[in-house]
Amino acid sequence: MHSVSKFASYDNSTQHISIQTDNVPALKEGEILVKILCTSLCRSDIHTYLGKRIEKNPTILGHEIVGVIDHFGPLAPTHDLIGNQFKKGDKVTWAIYASSPEDELAKKGIPQKGSDLFKYGHEKITENNHFHGGLSEYIILRKNTPIVILKNELPNELASLINCSVATVAGAIRVAGDLKNKNIIIYGTGMLGIIACAMTSSLGANEIIAIDENLERLEISKEFGVTQIFLSNDANIPKVDIVFEFSGANKAIEDSIKLLHIGGALILIGAVFAQPPIAINAEYIIRNILTIKGLHNYNNEDFIKATQFMEEYYNSFPFTKLIKRGFELDDTDLAFQYAIKNNPFRVSIDIK
Amino acid sequence: MHSVSKFASYDNSTQHISIQTDNVPALKEGEILVKILCTSLCRSDIHTYLGKRIEKNPTILGHEIVGVIDHFGPLAPTHDLIGNQFKKGDKVTWAIYASSPEDELAKKGIPQKGSDLFKYGHEKITENNHFHGGLSEYIILRKNTPIVILKNELPNELASLINCSVATVAGAIRVAGDLKNKNIIIYGTGMLGIIACAMTSSLGANEIIAIDENLERLEISKEFGVTQIFLSNDANIPKVDIVFEFSGANKAIEDSIKLLHIGGALILIGAVFAQPPIAINAEYIIRNILTIKGLHNYNNEDFIKATQFMEEYYNSFPFTKLIKRGFELDDTDLAFQYAIKNNPFRVSIDIK
Repeated sequence: MHSVSKFASYDNSTQHISIQTDNVPALKEGEILVKILCTSLCRSDIHTYLGKRIEKNPTILGHEIVGVIDHFGPLAPTHDLIGNQFKKGDKVTWAIYASSPEDELAKKGIPQKGSDLFKYGHEKITENNHFHGGLSEYIILRKNTPIVILKNELPNELASLINCSVATVAGAIRVAGDLKNKNIIIYGTGMLGIIACAMTSSLGANEIIAIDENLERLEISKEFGVTQIFLSNDANIPKVDIVFEFSGANKAIEDSIKLLHIGGALILIGAVFAQPPIAINAEYIIRNILTIKGLHNYNNEDFIKATQFMEEYYNSFPFTKLIKRGFELDDTDLAFQYAIKNNPFRVSIDIK
Repeated sequence: MHSVSKFASYDNSTQHISIQTDNVPALKEGEILVKILCTSLCRSDIHTYLGKRIEKNPTILGHEIVGVIDHFGPLAPTHDLIGNQFKKGDKVTWAIYASSPEDELAKKGIPQKGSDLFKYGHEKITENNHFHGGLSEYIILRKNTPIVILKNELPNELASLINCSVATVAGAIRVAGDLKNKNIIIYGTGMLGIIACAMTSSLGANEIIAIDENLERLEISKEFGVTQIFLSNDANIPKVDIVFEFSGANKAIEDSIKLLHIGGALILIGAVFAQPPIAINAEYIIRNILTIKGLHNYNNEDFIKATQFMEEYYNSFPFTKLIKRGFELDDTDLAFQYAIKNNPFRVSIDIK
């Protein structure tokens, strides 16, 4: 087992990342050591980096991760979430959460909110709790982490998207229900929105209407199954059965309700930051028999669906063009600066 | 076939009901003439009577109705919604709506919003469109009306509740999903709220918590399966899995959201009148994985469930004590005045 690991430590008092090295501790019961191949910077990592979101401190950011199994701890799991047997060298990704399957919320299909929740890329570095983020050479997968073995041919920078962007979209689609022949709106064509275009298209949605205030992103969305695009201030956006709201903008949410047919559903995903309340008319919701559902993160079922989607469709849509590569672990600070300045869909970091 | 019928005509310009008599027209294709036994005054009838709600004018109010089959028109349906064969003298009730089963919304399970919707107790009296309300000796059931034959032993004043109060509650429970072992809140213990207490109790809900600002109504709710009662300003109301909101009050809706556990659902039913917008924090909805669903009226499935519930449980809960009886069709105006002044759960009118 490898005994030292380089990692990127983020300190929110300085808003600075420093590259450090530390000993990898002996694995505890149920743990697996993974050598990281690639980590992508999620928008929430960038929000933390900018101080817009306060995480435990200091921390190792990065939760969109792919790696290979390096070492098994005592009583480590022997099979992945789908039932395939682990061996050293397997390319794997894993849920952002580890929580007990016996927890009440886990039993209700909400393991991402379990009372003993551990969240990769969101924990404080301490003597007893280390190597839990993706911006590191090595990471320790905790007991009760849902893990899947990936096909080797799946490019690392796409594999790294599975356990956050893709799985969250899979969760949003699960709560929306059957999409076959439905007309839908994808509100907000950032990384999650674009993946939602592709995934809803793969599931047989009829019209897929993308809305954004950025025309360049809307044009790109057309390569991901979108059938119509509209700038958000367009007065002629047609009504649909389901709106997936990824923008998080207050006005977008209020407008989305008016874009639903009778019996329609609004799925809220994007608004995961502090914001003023939205104004909703309850009588309108009732008379139009509308549903509003919020989803944060995802569950095991969504994670499996996300993996299957990426393995089946990674070559069907031009995902690679969404990702800015060329950064290594030593360049982490530079990679964040690049992401903030240039705002690509994703910046990924290859970790050697 | 009976040729004349007395009816109560409501004119919103005078806010007055006058008892009139008119010829019953020849039945058209698919129609059935029903002699009415009993009609209850729904809260929406009272709102219309008071001018708080503007309906087509003049009209025959009353849509919570039970009657007996008097005459079949040409090509009238031969079987009820459940598949039982009709005969003259059958005691029946029917949905408040008639709409084409070929309509797109009907096919989606929302017949109550069909594009050709006809709604009993809500139509204008004209030469060609008459006898469509319950405050009348006779009523003509239109083509495409979902009808059910009732057990004769079901008391008329309880049977009359099925097609509005009980069916709407059945619909609310359908959209809420499985209630087995769930903890729930019934917010607002008017007629619908009380029925919801009884019905959720019959479906195996665990804690059934009633909230109202009226302690007397809360005390009555205890006879309908409620396990805990709280005045609406109580700071110690526990969180639950599902809130059914029947009060329609703005603050009640906002408070309800805070009374949900992670993964919980708020079902909006009561707020079917003009009101200011409610303020909702989208981030809270997302992070707590909440669902908000509106329901107006109900569909055929709910109507059947409502009938089955009342036939099975009418003797298990003291429903009759909720209903003020003793009024006849000639007393309709008096009955409305009584309902406004004394605010019982329901006033029912026996029609001879």
